[in-house]
Amino acid sequence: MKIIMIGAEGDIGRAACAELSERHELIKVGRSSGDIHADISDRASIEEMYRKVGKVDAVISTAGSVHFGSLTDFTEEQFMLGLQNKVMGQINVVLVGMNYVSDGGSFTLTSGVLDRDPVKQATGAATANGALAGFVKGASIEMPRGLRVNVVSPGLLEVSKPRYGSFFPGHEMVSSERVGLAYVKSIEGALTGQVIIVA
Amino acid sequence: MKIIMIGAEGDIGRAACAELSERHELIKVGRSSGDIHADISDRASIEEMYRKVGKVDAVISTAGSVHFGSLTDFTEEQFMLGLQNKVMGQINVVLVGMNYVSDGGSFTLTSGVLDRDPVKQATGAATANGALAGFVKGASIEMPRGLRVNVVSPGLLEVSKPRYGSFFPGHEMVSSERVGLAYVKSIEGALTGQVIIVA
Repeated sequence: MKIIMIGAEGDIGRAACAELSERHELIKVGRSSGDIHADISDRASIEEMYRKVGKVDAVISTAGSVHFGSLTDFTEEQFMLGLQNKVMGQINVVLVGMNYVSDGGSFTLTSGVLDRDPVKQATGAATANGALAGFVKGASIEMPRGLRVNVVSPGLLEVSKPRYGSFFPGHEMVSSERVGLAYVKSIEGALTGQVIIVA
Repeated sequence: MKIIMIGAEGDIGRAACAELSERHELIKVGRSSGDIHADISDRASIEEMYRKVGKVDAVISTAGSVHFGSLTDFTEEQFMLGLQNKVMGQINVVLVGMNYVSDGGSFTLTSGVLDRDPVKQATGAATANGALAGFVKGASIEMPRGLRVNVVSPGLLEVSKPRYGSFFPGHEMVSSERVGLAYVKSIEGALTGQVIIVA
């Protein structure tokens, strides 16, 4: 399969690439790295990405920003960052991409653990993750041409511990290999409308 | 208890009022009806509402708009309506209200069935509902002064069938009485961080 991989240089993106690259052609996309540059916060940038790549069989997004901060300090703008970037950005990857993915192809988005096992300062992430779960559930029953859509919800990756571990006291971490398998399951399998949890 | 009831004139708001009004003092709020007017899409309007009412023991929101339409026709603006109005509007009711609700008081928001039992044309609602589920899960562990926050997720109300029934083929409907009890459970009980499902 020909697969667009948005966020290929992040920890989760690398995990997905490692499991998929032997069997598939990956087009790596990043804001400032990869084969093609695109920014999911800008719908025009997403459209340009698809025009450059042309027809594909699957699209993965591991991209999306949220704000972290104490609930009592959270502003409307900080909440909207997650809703506009991580949620709307990934939804736009699907809305625009429906015209470019071949029959029976798939979209695999990425959320995370924080709506099912919350930590402090992460209400923005919890809200965004929940939105993506709702999106794939709703969208899956209306996708044209047998297209599928899932979201992978990984726990904190072992490789991400140095940067984010202090936010996740007591959380069991997950291996990059197990996270990669979740993307394989979504892309090579037949699921749709699912939150694929890696816990 | 003194309770702010936003969306008091809607089908869900009426159901909540019917169960709560005998034992509690309800301040009914609507965009153009009720004791006080407020529009949750405007943070300044929410702030003015709280300033007028002063200290309360609980806040209910049954307000929030989303767009309904086929997934393949959905625009970014139509998705953002739900994220800004139903999601951010209700989140702002909590963020602003944390300064006005007494110790141990509660917020009860409202989502709906569409992220757990989707129907066509409702991906915007499914996304918004999921976001609210994530929000209460994340926010509940950071609320100050013992404040609690839950979201009620009702199925289609029997009284709403004339207007919305055609969107929900085969859905079992729920009575207004059962929906009202969910708000009682949230307000008079001790739950927090929960999606209270009425199915």
